[in-house]
Amino acid sequence: MKDYNILLDVRRMPDVWYNITPDMPKPVDPPLHPGTKQPVGPADLAAIFPMALIEQEVSQKPTISIPGEIMDIYRLWRPTPLRRAYRFEKALGTPAKIFYKNESVSPSGSHKLNTAVAQVYYNKQEKTKEMSTETGAGQWGTALSIACSMFDVKCTVYMVRVSYEQKPYRRSLMQTYGAKVIPSPSNTTESGKSFLRQHPDTSGSLGMAISEAVEVAAKSGGTTKYSLGSVLNHVLLHQTVIGQEAKLQMESVGEYPDIIIGCCGGGSNFAGLAFPFAPDKIKRGKKIDFIGVEPSACPTMTRGIFAYDFGDTGEFTPLLKQYTLGHNFMPPGIHAGGLRYHGIAAQLALLVKEGVMRAMAYPQNPVFEACMTFTRAEGIIPAPESGHAIRSVVDEALKCKESGESKTILFNLSGHGHFDMLAYDDYLGGKLQDYDLDQSVIEEAERSIPKV
Amino acid sequence: MKDYNILLDVRRMPDVWYNITPDMPKPVDPPLHPGTKQPVGPADLAAIFPMALIEQEVSQKPTISIPGEIMDIYRLWRPTPLRRAYRFEKALGTPAKIFYKNESVSPSGSHKLNTAVAQVYYNKQEKTKEMSTETGAGQWGTALSIACSMFDVKCTVYMVRVSYEQKPYRRSLMQTYGAKVIPSPSNTTESGKSFLRQHPDTSGSLGMAISEAVEVAAKSGGTTKYSLGSVLNHVLLHQTVIGQEAKLQMESVGEYPDIIIGCCGGGSNFAGLAFPFAPDKIKRGKKIDFIGVEPSACPTMTRGIFAYDFGDTGEFTPLLKQYTLGHNFMPPGIHAGGLRYHGIAAQLALLVKEGVMRAMAYPQNPVFEACMTFTRAEGIIPAPESGHAIRSVVDEALKCKESGESKTILFNLSGHGHFDMLAYDDYLGGKLQDYDLDQSVIEEAERSIPKV
Repeated sequence: MKDYNILLDVRRMPDVWYNITPDMPKPVDPPLHPGTKQPVGPADLAAIFPMALIEQEVSQKPTISIPGEIMDIYRLWRPTPLRRAYRFEKALGTPAKIFYKNESVSPSGSHKLNTAVAQVYYNKQEKTKEMSTETGAGQWGTALSIACSMFDVKCTVYMVRVSYEQKPYRRSLMQTYGAKVIPSPSNTTESGKSFLRQHPDTSGSLGMAISEAVEVAAKSGGTTKYSLGSVLNHVLLHQTVIGQEAKLQMESVGEYPDIIIGCCGGGSNFAGLAFPFAPDKIKRGKKIDFIGVEPSACPTMTRGIFAYDFGDTGEFTPLLKQYTLGHNFMPPGIHAGGLRYHGIAAQLALLVKEGVMRAMAYPQNPVFEACMTFTRAEGIIPAPESGHAIRSVVDEALKCKESGESKTILFNLSGHGHFDMLAYDDYLGGKLQDYDLDQSVIEEAERSIPKV
Repeated sequence: MKDYNILLDVRRMPDVWYNITPDMPKPVDPPLHPGTKQPVGPADLAAIFPMALIEQEVSQKPTISIPGEIMDIYRLWRPTPLRRAYRFEKALGTPAKIFYKNESVSPSGSHKLNTAVAQVYYNKQEKTKEMSTETGAGQWGTALSIACSMFDVKCTVYMVRVSYEQKPYRRSLMQTYGAKVIPSPSNTTESGKSFLRQHPDTSGSLGMAISEAVEVAAKSGGTTKYSLGSVLNHVLLHQTVIGQEAKLQMESVGEYPDIIIGCCGGGSNFAGLAFPFAPDKIKRGKKIDFIGVEPSACPTMTRGIFAYDFGDTGEFTPLLKQYTLGHNFMPPGIHAGGLRYHGIAAQLALLVKEGVMRAMAYPQNPVFEACMTFTRAEGIIPAPESGHAIRSVVDEALKCKESGESKTILFNLSGHGHFDMLAYDDYLGGKLQDYDLDQSVIEEAERSIPKV
C-alpha cells in the first residue's frame, strides 16, 4: 500500500513547543525600544502582551510544555496529515519524492490557528477582555476570530482596506465567528486618521493596520491586548507543532527531507515546519537545504537590508534586527496578501544571514502556474501564499528530473485558497501582473531605517 | 486524554462498498422506462452510463470491492476524521454525546468526491472521453471536476443559473480544475431552449439542469456519459465508505450511536453514513433512530407523495419509485442549493416508507441559528446543507437535556460552507426568508406524476 496519507496517532502528538533560541548559531540581537533605542524589557511589552507570551518571547528553554486546554483544542484538527504527493510527482515527471504537511485542514484553513489558540489562551489566563489585531489576506484575522470565540474574548480585526474590499467573504467569515472587522486605515484610531490625512486614497498596508491595532491595545489601559500572527519568537514557537509532527510522520515511513520549503510573509509557517529540523543541520551537520520563498513584489530576504527596523508604519513597535524593505514600503497589490510585509522574523533573518537557510523570490504568474499543476494532481486549491512554496518545489523537482537525483522534498501547504478564487479567476483570465522591485525602494529603505 | 479527534489507521480503511440491496426489508420497485413505463434493462441505461455502474446499480452482492486505483485516490483525504464535539455539547449544555464524521476535509470540500472518483474511474475504464452533469450549490460539480482532472476526462457542468450568478467562485473553482461550466437552462441543448421558451426569466432548477446534461450524453453517440451526484443506488453505494469508517471509529472509543442524522437532498450523504448501520436495526433489531433532514421549502420525504416519478423536468430519466414533490416543482431560492430537489433516492424513500428511518424538515433561519452555535464551538463553518443535520442534532441534544438522558448522536458534516458565505452574510443581516410549502404544490404534483 502506498503511503499517500501519513496520519500520526493522536497519542503521539507533540505536547511541547520547540524553542530554537538555545540552538541558534549565534544569539539574535535584542529588540530595541522604539523611543529610547535601548533593549526593551518585559515591562515595556506588558502594555500590549500578556506576561506569559513575553516570557516565551525571551525564553532560553529548549522546549515549552503545551497546556492541556490548548492540546484539547489542537485535537480539533491536529495532528494534520502529511501527504506523499505521488500524483504531483507524476505530473512533474520527477524522480524526487515530494511530501507536504497539510495545514489547510484546520478550521481557519491555515496554520495560523496554531498560534491564535495559544495566544488567546494566555490572554484569557491573564484576564484580557478584548484582543486587537491586523490582517492582510484574512487568514490571520480568521484564526484569531475563531480562537477568541472559543475562549469568549472579544476580537477586533483591522483589515487592510484592499483586502476588505476584494474579499467580502473573508470579512463575513470573521463576523460569523463574532469578530468586529474594520477596514484599515480607519478613523477609529489616531494613527489611522494620520495615514488617511497623508494618503487619502490609500488601499492600506499591513504596516498601517498593525499601527492601528497596537494603538488600540496601548491606549486601552490593559483591557485590550494586541496579537501578532507572525514575526515574533513566540509565534514561531507555537508553529513548531507542524515540524515536530512532520518529523515523526517522515520517520514513520523511513524518510528524512533533503530540502524543506515554505513561503515567507513574516516567516511563521516556514519556521514552524523548518525549525524542528534545524538542529540536525546546526548541531549535527546534517545536509538540509532550507528554502524560504517570497514574492518578487516583496522580496524581503532576497533583496532587503539586514538591519534594525520598525514592525509597523506608525513606528510604535519595538525595533527588530531583520531583513527589511523599509517600514514605509507599500508593496504592490499581489494576491498573496499574507506575503506583503516589509520585514521578516528576526530568528529566520539571522538563520538566512548565517547561511543556515536561504531565500528565493518568484513573481505571481509562475506561482499560479505551479498551483494549477498541483491542484489538478492533488485536488487541493492552495492559498496563493502557499503557492510560492509550491513554485519552488516544482523547480527543485525539475532539477532532480534533469540530474536524475531522487531527492526528498518536504513543504508546508500552509493554507487553502477557498477565499482566493478571485486570484485564480484573474490568473485564468490572463489578468495577473508580475512585479519586480525597483531599486529606489532599497534606497528609500536605507533612508527610512532608524539609526541605532 | 479526551477523544476529540478519532482517526482511523489508514490500513484499516474499508476496501469494499457496502450494498444495502440484499438487506432491504423489501425490494425496491424497479426503475421504469420513461417512454414504455416498463422496467428498464441494462441496455436502456447504456447510452448514458458505463456498464460497470449499471451493474452496481442492480447488484445483489452484499459488498463490492473498491479497485486499488480508487483506494489510492481515496487516500488523498480518507479516512476522514470522526470528531467528538465536546465543545458543541458544552455550548448546548446537553448530556448527549455528539459525534460527527468530518467529510468537509476532502479536496472538494464535501462527501461528493467519494462517488465522483468512482464514477470517473469506471467511465475511464470504458473509454468515456467526456462527462456531463448538473450542479446546484456547486458541491457536486466541483467534485466531478476534480475527479475528471485526475483521470484526464473532459467535464461539462450545467450549473443552475441562480447559483451560477450568486456563486461566481464556485464557477471559478470548477474552471480551475479544467471543467466547462454552463449556466442552466442554456441554449446549448434542445431541452434548455425549450425551458427558456416556456420560462424566459427562469433562475433554473436541478430538474432542468439534469435534463440538459442527460441530453448531451444521450446525443453524443457514446463519447460523453452522464453522471449523477446523488439519488441512484450506485451513488449511495460509493458513499458507504463514510458509515463503514464511522462504525470502526465509534467502536475504537467504545461507542455506538442511538441516533444517526444527515441532511437529505437526493439522500447520498445521509445514506452513506446510515446504511452501514442499518442491518443492525433491520436484521438484528437494534434500536437506532435514523433521521434524514430536509428543508421546509423542499420537504420531499415529509410532505411528498410516494410514487413513481421522473428525476428531471424534461422527462428523460427513468421513473423511480420515490417520495416526490413533482418533477416540475420549482423550489424557492433557499441557500442550501444542494437540498433543492423534488425527489429522493428510492432506497431511502422505501426505508422511510417502511418505518426503518424517518424524516424531519426545518426552515432556514433555525438551521443557520444552529450553524452559528456549532461554528463558534467547533470552529468549522458548515455548508448550509449540513446545517440542516446540525439543527436536528441540536433538537435531539436539547431533548436529552430535558430528559437527562445521555444519548449518543452521530451526524454527517457533509461539507464546509467556504463558498456559502453569502448565506451567512444574509443570516447575520437578518435577510433570510423562511418558506413553507403551499398545499397547491402537492395538488400540482398529483397531477404531474405519470400514470404507471
